[in-house]
Amino acid sequence: MKTLFKSIVGSINAPRGFKSSGVFCDVKKLGTGKGSNKGNKRDLALIFSELPASVAGMFTTNQICAAPVKVCVQRVANGRAQAVVVNSGNANACTGKQGMKDALAMCRVTATHLGISEELVLVGSTGRIGLPMPMTNIRSGITKAAGLLDPHSDSAANVAEAIMTSDTRPKEIAVELKLGGKPVRIGGICKGAGMIQPGMSPTGARPASLPLHATMLGFITTDAAIAPKALQAALTEAVAGSFNCITVDGDMSTNDTVLVLANGLANNKLITASGYRANPDFKKFQAALTHVCLELAKMIVRDGEGVHRVVKVIVEGAHSIEDADHAARAVANSALVKTSWHGGDPNWGRIIDALGYSNAKIVEESVDIGYSASGGKRILWSLKQGQPTATTFARLCKAVAPTEFDLRIRLNLGTASKFIYAADLTEEYVDYNKGDVTDPASLGG
Amino acid sequence: MKTLFKSIVGSINAPRGFKSSGVFCDVKKLGTGKGSNKGNKRDLALIFSELPASVAGMFTTNQICAAPVKVCVQRVANGRAQAVVVNSGNANACTGKQGMKDALAMCRVTATHLGISEELVLVGSTGRIGLPMPMTNIRSGITKAAGLLDPHSDSAANVAEAIMTSDTRPKEIAVELKLGGKPVRIGGICKGAGMIQPGMSPTGARPASLPLHATMLGFITTDAAIAPKALQAALTEAVAGSFNCITVDGDMSTNDTVLVLANGLANNKLITASGYRANPDFKKFQAALTHVCLELAKMIVRDGEGVHRVVKVIVEGAHSIEDADHAARAVANSALVKTSWHGGDPNWGRIIDALGYSNAKIVEESVDIGYSASGGKRILWSLKQGQPTATTFARLCKAVAPTEFDLRIRLNLGTASKFIYAADLTEEYVDYNKGDVTDPASLGG
Repeated sequence: MKTLFKSIVGSINAPRGFKSSGVFCDVKKLGTGKGSNKGNKRDLALIFSELPASVAGMFTTNQICAAPVKVCVQRVANGRAQAVVVNSGNANACTGKQGMKDALAMCRVTATHLGISEELVLVGSTGRIGLPMPMTNIRSGITKAAGLLDPHSDSAANVAEAIMTSDTRPKEIAVELKLGGKPVRIGGICKGAGMIQPGMSPTGARPASLPLHATMLGFITTDAAIAPKALQAALTEAVAGSFNCITVDGDMSTNDTVLVLANGLANNKLITASGYRANPDFKKFQAALTHVCLELAKMIVRDGEGVHRVVKVIVEGAHSIEDADHAARAVANSALVKTSWHGGDPNWGRIIDALGYSNAKIVEESVDIGYSASGGKRILWSLKQGQPTATTFARLCKAVAPTEFDLRIRLNLGTASKFIYAADLTEEYVDYNKGDVTDPASLGG
Repeated sequence: MKTLFKSIVGSINAPRGFKSSGVFCDVKKLGTGKGSNKGNKRDLALIFSELPASVAGMFTTNQICAAPVKVCVQRVANGRAQAVVVNSGNANACTGKQGMKDALAMCRVTATHLGISEELVLVGSTGRIGLPMPMTNIRSGITKAAGLLDPHSDSAANVAEAIMTSDTRPKEIAVELKLGGKPVRIGGICKGAGMIQPGMSPTGARPASLPLHATMLGFITTDAAIAPKALQAALTEAVAGSFNCITVDGDMSTNDTVLVLANGLANNKLITASGYRANPDFKKFQAALTHVCLELAKMIVRDGEGVHRVVKVIVEGAHSIEDADHAARAVANSALVKTSWHGGDPNWGRIIDALGYSNAKIVEESVDIGYSASGGKRILWSLKQGQPTATTFARLCKAVAPTEFDLRIRLNLGTASKFIYAADLTEEYVDYNKGDVTDPASLGG
């Protein structure tokens, strides 16, 4: 498909009618990971739409699910939202009844300050699991943030900073497309950078068909006019091909959340709930939203904890889509494969070993393994039909030397395919995550 | 059960009628991992029984399975064997038809030297995947080894050394029990130390019920008189509770193999194939064999690549045995949990997160997490019913400070339980496995 959208400056404030703010309230200081620099990083943010918006969401399928996720699942089902309050430094996970009260209080306080119904406020949290929310700080942070709501890109950048934990940099994107001649904008921000192998669904319930596995948080705004049902369909498909196709360390979080708010201020012809699949405007919107999600997802892997190399694991020719997923994830999460990537070692033995122990059907004599440049079409084969090719070790080393490359696996047993953006495993990852027990406040989520 | 066996000196040569030898033939020099010190570590071994013995085996369920494993699966089915030839430095995996020819040639050359039928010879290999077997070296090694066969414990120690790859020390054990008044001995050796999460079955076929996942090799000898069928039953149960309950890095190898030879020279009353389950001698033998396997399996984890801490993950109260297995493996293989162990961080948030994304049924409000001293009964609870206890952080840190401790998880949803011996994830593991591409011979399997 011809690209039907263009990149524009900014992120969540780029669409019409959105304001945001990111402030300091010392939650990180009180108990987050090393991402904290004790009071001088933003840790609370508000996103606000001038009008109530259509809303859609995708949520962790982890059975241990944080209070803010539970609140969002319920409220997104209503189809309307107008604001999001989010904090970093504390995940409000495994915090029992008090955690649920605190998540609801965050919405209520926000609603009061904004003069809207509390049912229209969503909430997100990320940080250490199991600590009570420091509600005094949170309340003062919300008050501060409400007073600073602003439509400029600087404020959106502050939000992108306020949701960071172990991330080393904020993650922002915005695009513009035309629907019926009207310019429509989509903006997004997200955060990683550890406990990253999201497997999200619209309700947090785990689909039986696929084995789904940071906290990752993603917040997307758009001024498109689109009904909640169509928006949810677009988001579900976009996340399936983006945030649900990444892994840093194979650990699915208790808090993974992606929200999208669509306020309709672009004045395009409403994409209605009935018949949206056949609507060309829906298809254009879907493509642009998928692009936004995929670019954000890739930023998460590139900025993953200790990550030096990002590898797109592409499995083709699998017997079924489930098999393609099993095969890609087995390779993407193998400690031995990940350390070989770190070392720049084109070790196909570890790759075929991981394929062999995956739950995918594999036939040794059918497996091809090769490499291409990131996004490239030309494949340098290392293994064909289960046997090493004549390609020299030096050439293979060159293929895996870049900081990003594509690993091409063909099982030659069917037509199903799957890609996963994966990361290498480095000494820095271990060092970061082992923490320092002499300083409990330094211990990550 | 009262302990019905005692530890004795030695390993595979301790039972009557067994001889062995371990020699240098420069296979490691030609292409193994860093365990190689280039020609001055033994890399080929023979194990020989004076009489044809009953035999049983357990083999990797990896769909990518090395040639020596395929040979053993076929021959163990015959129920009789008299010798084992084994090399380190080359796994003879993914080596195609030539690999199969080479594995069979190893047996044939060994049989010729020993003057026995080649059908009575088994073969094992460990080392780098995908390299052709250096058969000139292997042949000269077998000739050398056949000339040095010896019943003393020194020779058995040489075998334990010859099968090492990244292991830092040989692994040996022997016990003696009484069957009908006759002293019966069981001896064993094994090797790890990376690509370790064995999931072995008697035929290499994967059971549908359990998700199974180093190369680990284990060789056990006994002078017990026991029919092959009973011996296989004893080994299957012993491995299920030992080698199949360990993980170093979550990677199941292409070569995992455990073999046991029983030559009957103890002259105990034969444990026959019919009715063995009710035979008290079988039960005694089973208990002793399980002890041998478990002690060897623990040695593998303790000597795992870069391992500082060994944690016995004990899951109790699961809804089903499959759930208990899923839950224990999710925790045991979580990069975040493993790095927290390395750091001495009693981080229950990462543990409950891993439980939540496992395929086991989990109810947050029912989960208890605690620690006990290795093998201890007293549990220091960190989490009860999904909520942190009043136990201080300092006390929890003390509980996870030893080099070995037990992690106690109670799901409180049923009666099924499972334990897994797991390892921490350290910078040394990463450094070792990233290898050095400027020296391909240094790259591990």
